[in-house]
Amino acid sequence: MKLKLLYTCIALTGLTASAFAQETVDAASVAKIREEGLNHSKVMDIAFNLTDVSGPRLAGSPGLKRAQDWAVSQLKEWGMANSKLEAWGKFGKGWEVQKNYAAITVPYYHAIIAIPKAWTPGTNGAIKGDVVLVKADSLADLDKYKGNLAGKIVIFDTKPLTERTFKADAARYTEEELDKMAQATMAPRGQRNNAFDPNSPAMAARRKMIAMRSAMATFFVDQKVGLVLSQGRGTDGTVFTTNGASYADTAKAVAPELETSSEDFQRILRLVKAGKKVELEADIKTAFFTNDLQGYNVVAEIPGTDKKLKDQVIMIGGHLDSWHAGTGATDNAAGSAVMMEAMRILKAIGFKPKRTIRIALWSSEEQGLFGSRGYVAAHFGDPRTLALKPEQAKLDAYYNLDNGTGKIRGIYLQGDSAAGPLFKAWLEPFKDLGATTVTVSNTGGTDHQSFDAVGLPGFQFIQDGIDYNTRTHHSNQDTYERLIEDDLKQAATIVASFVYNTSERTEMVPRKPLPTVAPPPPPAAPVAPAKN
Amino acid sequence: MKLKLLYTCIALTGLTASAFAQETVDAASVAKIREEGLNHSKVMDIAFNLTDVSGPRLAGSPGLKRAQDWAVSQLKEWGMANSKLEAWGKFGKGWEVQKNYAAITVPYYHAIIAIPKAWTPGTNGAIKGDVVLVKADSLADLDKYKGNLAGKIVIFDTKPLTERTFKADAARYTEEELDKMAQATMAPRGQRNNAFDPNSPAMAARRKMIAMRSAMATFFVDQKVGLVLSQGRGTDGTVFTTNGASYADTAKAVAPELETSSEDFQRILRLVKAGKKVELEADIKTAFFTNDLQGYNVVAEIPGTDKKLKDQVIMIGGHLDSWHAGTGATDNAAGSAVMMEAMRILKAIGFKPKRTIRIALWSSEEQGLFGSRGYVAAHFGDPRTLALKPEQAKLDAYYNLDNGTGKIRGIYLQGDSAAGPLFKAWLEPFKDLGATTVTVSNTGGTDHQSFDAVGLPGFQFIQDGIDYNTRTHHSNQDTYERLIEDDLKQAATIVASFVYNTSERTEMVPRKPLPTVAPPPPPAAPVAPAKN
Repeated sequence: MKLKLLYTCIALTGLTASAFAQETVDAASVAKIREEGLNHSKVMDIAFNLTDVSGPRLAGSPGLKRAQDWAVSQLKEWGMANSKLEAWGKFGKGWEVQKNYAAITVPYYHAIIAIPKAWTPGTNGAIKGDVVLVKADSLADLDKYKGNLAGKIVIFDTKPLTERTFKADAARYTEEELDKMAQATMAPRGQRNNAFDPNSPAMAARRKMIAMRSAMATFFVDQKVGLVLSQGRGTDGTVFTTNGASYADTAKAVAPELETSSEDFQRILRLVKAGKKVELEADIKTAFFTNDLQGYNVVAEIPGTDKKLKDQVIMIGGHLDSWHAGTGATDNAAGSAVMMEAMRILKAIGFKPKRTIRIALWSSEEQGLFGSRGYVAAHFGDPRTLALKPEQAKLDAYYNLDNGTGKIRGIYLQGDSAAGPLFKAWLEPFKDLGATTVTVSNTGGTDHQSFDAVGLPGFQFIQDGIDYNTRTHHSNQDTYERLIEDDLKQAATIVASFVYNTSERTEMVPRKPLPTVAPPPPPAAPVAPAKN
Repeated sequence: MKLKLLYTCIALTGLTASAFAQETVDAASVAKIREEGLNHSKVMDIAFNLTDVSGPRLAGSPGLKRAQDWAVSQLKEWGMANSKLEAWGKFGKGWEVQKNYAAITVPYYHAIIAIPKAWTPGTNGAIKGDVVLVKADSLADLDKYKGNLAGKIVIFDTKPLTERTFKADAARYTEEELDKMAQATMAPRGQRNNAFDPNSPAMAARRKMIAMRSAMATFFVDQKVGLVLSQGRGTDGTVFTTNGASYADTAKAVAPELETSSEDFQRILRLVKAGKKVELEADIKTAFFTNDLQGYNVVAEIPGTDKKLKDQVIMIGGHLDSWHAGTGATDNAAGSAVMMEAMRILKAIGFKPKRTIRIALWSSEEQGLFGSRGYVAAHFGDPRTLALKPEQAKLDAYYNLDNGTGKIRGIYLQGDSAAGPLFKAWLEPFKDLGATTVTVSNTGGTDHQSFDAVGLPGFQFIQDGIDYNTRTHHSNQDTYERLIEDDLKQAATIVASFVYNTSERTEMVPRKPLPTVAPPPPPAAPVAPAKN
């Protein structure tokens, strides 16, 4: 017998929804979900397989393929239906590091901490060369280096990074910060995304910088530069990584490039600027994979059982692809593992949902949300024309997780204020676990935006930041130990409960009005080599 | 014309000195010292030469020799007398890293962050081997590995390190902490150093552990182990290093061993414990130097000018040797640079001291204060017998700096409470720079202890800890950027002022009574390979 508890929800300040809304929550089911999610969790085992066992999961790489195959197989093993890889369109080349060695050899030996930039080539065997400081603000400035860079190690005059050690790397949201989020109101559309106005000075400067970088990249290839060193963000051995070339199968050649730990980079730079001879040796091997240029998402389902509602779909997801220097533990094995675990929990408690529940683990999120955009375009509609497909009407809601290892503290409504009272009620049983806040605010940078762009209710949860921005997000330190077990258990439990509530509700989650204009495109991927 | 200011000093709570003491400070000279030290500093240039330019300064290494030679030459160039290397006795082998490369190759490629343990051999070229988890609490446990370890990579089952990121790495002393230090009273001798009682259970356990490690080291050599991985302290790419073998020229052979970043170590361990095959490749080359087994200190002087007092000597110093993974910036290029800068300041202001001022930059501090102990034995007396030499009576005071980059907050009296009122008065002009605290307490672990052991007034300054214990002290991250310029300038200025005051005083700094028993020996250097 199911116990029904009634939570009455006062609409939040800042929400424009009806002042009072009633939403039922099935307390017995929540209790079952909590028991399975908090006391019989598999989330760390899932995360172990996605990180340590699979390795780095750069879009298109063998590591991502290992993780995808494992996820498909594991979801099947748990009894999910239609567990498979689904192509979303053309991505580009796969790439991985196969050897990574670099060291100072003069004035003394010191192996450096440095990571090949994604999609850059290797050194074609072991090389050794002097370091040359290149100072060039314009193409004309490059002239003086003509004929002098063959086999050399190139660096740029780059500012040292600010020391941050007097502040803790990791933090959780304070009650004050959460209260402020809860009080937020939506900014009018016109005030947002100014940075992407093609006529803005910022965008003009950006275009100029990209052109200069592109010209410099060509110059370095022509001049047969041995290796480029750029300074990676991060301190204490932590190095944040990016791409150094395009993943496109048609991308033009660039020189090999290492994102170098700030300490090693600045040591080399100080010595060179002081007129000391510095020599490096390196042996970098990277591999490109062009057999299959398609991108894929992992999808799997728990089919709906209610005759009238089973064609309606609730989706949950997160991106499975990562950067290449770590194993993408917090970005985003965490979200992927939580979503897989939420599916497992629902299956484990024997839940027969009214509506169909579908998980999607996206790829190529890091290059521009490509996996989810491709999926949305194939199933729901075109965000540019707003030509919608029939499935669009049947997607109840999409829940995303992609802000690291921190536990769930609430949810962003993404402007869909009518959903606020529902979510407030659904969070009520998780007050003791720290999840309370519903904010009408948007958050960006991840896959719920792909759904939002075609008028679908797409939501990202609010998560404690922990050390996501300071240590893990895209860095060589985004590894398994950054995952906080209790936080991931909490998150999976809450997601499972949200899915349960969405599925069993009479009505679908209320939607915002359809957007009237297509949202601005995301920023283009940077062109390498970066001179930062 | 010299202005004389009179500071009246109330004896500190907890000090047993006379309740009131008067001590004059020459304000004009302090002003000159401040001007030179704070506004014309060379301390960062000195530090650059000792770190970036010289490289790691492990005792006996070519890097230490480069730094010593540079220091002797620089002190000469500034006009110091008797600037030279002075042998203090036999140390042992020099050692340095000449190649350092290690990577996981199965289940996927990942270059690891790992540092050869000091005085361990290399791999004799590139090697590749499976990882074997060795679990052995006794010699009998090793039997099962006999014949199975040739060319293998050995790891031990080691606990993951505790996450520390919610607390800032770096901190300065609070007023409360300084107040507490100022209120301290001396603990009776018998209550200290219990850990070194040879009959204590702790020491018995330590002996057993050392014997087991020694036996294991021999076993690994006999079994032709390819490489040992042990977990280094530290997170986020920071690795703290130690020695893995003795520096003695007669030391027995050990296997090559890398202190591995906790993240990489735990990734390998998790995979192996889950039954996954893990393969590593490595190429480690280390070099031993046996041409000269002597240890040396750098010494230089500003000769005294007062006929009656010039035979009396004030010494300042810090150890110049470091560990090998970084460039020993905070341990202890900082203290060495500050002491050199203090000498430069005094010379630059045209100071003609009454007494002789001598700087000593010690070596082999990290192995047991050997440089300063050897110097003290040669010049002042034997701490075991307390047989003293005539120079002992003429050494006025020794000031040491060796607690990182943090500015001076005060001074430890090392139990010499009679010196308290002097130092309190001498600190008075530096209140605005945060240096106020005089504590009767001892502090240990560095070279002032060598002086204290033969009844000489040897003092170490109190310094803000910054990130010394969390990030830099003996780690691969002890590099130039950890140095805080303003703090080093402050420290050099205060040291120069202390030296000035000591030199110009009518009386020598009051001494404690001679110790009646020799102090216990310092802990022995650990024997490798460590199973931590």
